[in-house]
Amino acid sequence: MKTPGTQCRGGDAPLSSREEAARLAAFYRDTLLQDVMPFWLRHGLDREHGGILTALGRDGSILDTDKSVWFQGRAGWMFATLYNTVEQRPDWLEAALSCQEFSRRHCHDASGKMYFTVTREGRPLRMRRYVFSESFAAISSAAIAKATGDDSSRQEAVRAFETYLKHSFTPGVMPPKFEATRPSRGIGGYMIGIATAQELRANLGDIVISGRSCTEWIDYSIEEIQRCFLKPDIQALMEVVGDHGEILDHFDGRTLNPGHALEAAWFIMHEGKLRRDRRVIELGLQVLDWMWKRGWDEEFGGIFYFRDLKGLPVQEYWHDMKFWWPHNEAVIATLLAWTLTGDEKYSRWHRTVHDWSFKHFSDPEFGEWYGYLHRDGTVSVPLKGNMWKGPFHLPRMLWYGMQLCDGLAGGNGSIP
Amino acid sequence: MKTPGTQCRGGDAPLSSREEAARLAAFYRDTLLQDVMPFWLRHGLDREHGGILTALGRDGSILDTDKSVWFQGRAGWMFATLYNTVEQRPDWLEAALSCQEFSRRHCHDASGKMYFTVTREGRPLRMRRYVFSESFAAISSAAIAKATGDDSSRQEAVRAFETYLKHSFTPGVMPPKFEATRPSRGIGGYMIGIATAQELRANLGDIVISGRSCTEWIDYSIEEIQRCFLKPDIQALMEVVGDHGEILDHFDGRTLNPGHALEAAWFIMHEGKLRRDRRVIELGLQVLDWMWKRGWDEEFGGIFYFRDLKGLPVQEYWHDMKFWWPHNEAVIATLLAWTLTGDEKYSRWHRTVHDWSFKHFSDPEFGEWYGYLHRDGTVSVPLKGNMWKGPFHLPRMLWYGMQLCDGLAGGNGSIP
Repeated sequence: MKTPGTQCRGGDAPLSSREEAARLAAFYRDTLLQDVMPFWLRHGLDREHGGILTALGRDGSILDTDKSVWFQGRAGWMFATLYNTVEQRPDWLEAALSCQEFSRRHCHDASGKMYFTVTREGRPLRMRRYVFSESFAAISSAAIAKATGDDSSRQEAVRAFETYLKHSFTPGVMPPKFEATRPSRGIGGYMIGIATAQELRANLGDIVISGRSCTEWIDYSIEEIQRCFLKPDIQALMEVVGDHGEILDHFDGRTLNPGHALEAAWFIMHEGKLRRDRRVIELGLQVLDWMWKRGWDEEFGGIFYFRDLKGLPVQEYWHDMKFWWPHNEAVIATLLAWTLTGDEKYSRWHRTVHDWSFKHFSDPEFGEWYGYLHRDGTVSVPLKGNMWKGPFHLPRMLWYGMQLCDGLAGGNGSIP
Repeated sequence: MKTPGTQCRGGDAPLSSREEAARLAAFYRDTLLQDVMPFWLRHGLDREHGGILTALGRDGSILDTDKSVWFQGRAGWMFATLYNTVEQRPDWLEAALSCQEFSRRHCHDASGKMYFTVTREGRPLRMRRYVFSESFAAISSAAIAKATGDDSSRQEAVRAFETYLKHSFTPGVMPPKFEATRPSRGIGGYMIGIATAQELRANLGDIVISGRSCTEWIDYSIEEIQRCFLKPDIQALMEVVGDHGEILDHFDGRTLNPGHALEAAWFIMHEGKLRRDRRVIELGLQVLDWMWKRGWDEEFGGIFYFRDLKGLPVQEYWHDMKFWWPHNEAVIATLLAWTLTGDEKYSRWHRTVHDWSFKHFSDPEFGEWYGYLHRDGTVSVPLKGNMWKGPFHLPRMLWYGMQLCDGLAGGNGSIP
């Protein structure tokens, strides 16, 4: 197997020349098309029962046959998006349709709500309170509708997003985890609201769903994030706040998730770029600046999983581990910030996180990335996937980064 | 503050002389009475609202004012047990009664089921499906009934254990986490069943609760563990199995918890010792032998949190961290095994885990133990307590170890 994934930017010129941008675009493209997607097509696609298996060992061997419902949607979206935007490869479309078909047949309960995990054959294992399975089903169906023109996929995307919106934003619909004593809200629902509406709009147009257009749902989500989670006085984007945006001075309330915040930062910058709205871009840049500073580990490199708002001990055990996905989101956020501002700081940060990530997460022997490193960058478990890791954050980074670099190389990027 | 907690056994003679046993008894007693319990009395006891706060930083400062309902019971039991068995110190009894009173006033919902967390003032925060709050309330009330002769505490202990038994062992009462596709059961309910019945019997006598005597509930729990979780062919005590004891070849089913198994091992050995039943003792020894081998980290020392049955990657992120409590349970299990068998192997293992633990978990400056270390023994967070760590596993180890060593020193131990 060719393993382009071990290449680093270190030692090269800053990302300010067209040649360097073209070289990096080729690196992201090669890693995506010759390493990462082939790994999942070869080892993950379930040719017996349909859909995708993600619990794979270092070499792609199956560690657990149970299926993640999130990943039927996430992988369906990734495959269909590559088909729509990179090349109309039949195997990508087939993979997307296999995930969609498995999801249609096996992943909903009698009420239509989607499970979290099912067996390899599709029998239900676990239902959860929240509705992220629905958000990923929505973006998958929308991308498939774009690829095939199939109206039922379009309708499914709309229905899944309706379910997502209803459970996420109608008070009382989602069963609460806590008693009413201290009402709180998390940022996740708004962040995923932005990304899901962006994908639906990109593939189906700016249609109206549950009373708002996709763009209006994005506005709503960004406004709620600004109103409740953004804290300019303490330079933080909170993960959980009181129902009216109060800081909850307890373990949960103080726990920041820098990777999540960097992901939100680029969702917002992406929206600002599409709208050519400097105010929205600057909101995303502000979040990136604050949360890079809070999240980057100056001692060992890499992005901490959790940080306490006041620098106190975090309760979650894995707080200082280095997970793959915050690094994917940081690569996108810094690269997008560089293309939008030309500020050398972002090019430096991009190189820093790109180099650290490819050095520590890549597996030169079997391809793809490890998912879980200790704080010092050593591998904690060599698996390539589980119910949370599969073909999503890493290929999305490679795909998005490739497009940004193609733009820079072709003079269509916006380096000022 | 005197900090006896940093002393090690290393370099000394094996624990085969009365002098060495007396020295170790004194070390455990000093650490318990001059370091650990004073830490919790000084920093944890809530003189404003009653009960105990456990979310404390390295120096005892409050990190989170929310209260663990588990710890109102666990701390109540520990304080009352020291009062009953070590010295009738009024401050210990007051502390126990404060935890009991807070629990009585604030920790039950309308149906009588106990919460998992409440605010400092006692307003409800979180209810969970399971009933460990009840098991700890039961042992606390039983020890307080013994200390005070108070009949209402005795009745409370019985009611709490009835609730525990009903939710744990009556099919259909506890809401399932998973769909019916793959019925499974965990070992935790049976283990805690043994320990709770042992404490009730020790303090209230072998009374009948929910149709069985305490001794019969212990028999029932040990039999279920043997029937479903004990796997002699693969030398493992399982943590989760299928409803009929089948190995579930998935992440959850293969995940072993060596610290939990070592705790079960000494609960069983303790029962065998009380009954002078060699067969029961040997069951505990067998579990200790297998799970020490699976759990001890030959590279860095310490006990792994989780291990995969087949040596495959574990899904839980913190699988290779070193938590304080498995080390407490391993110290007790190895020391008890040594006193029951005189097998030098157990004395060696006891020294190994005692020395590693006191070297890495002790805080010579502020006392008590850190709770969470990286695999290599470096501190992950410097906190001394949270919703899961408080005055329980460590002081229980010191108290139980002190008694075993006193017995050895006085010639009442059973070194053959």
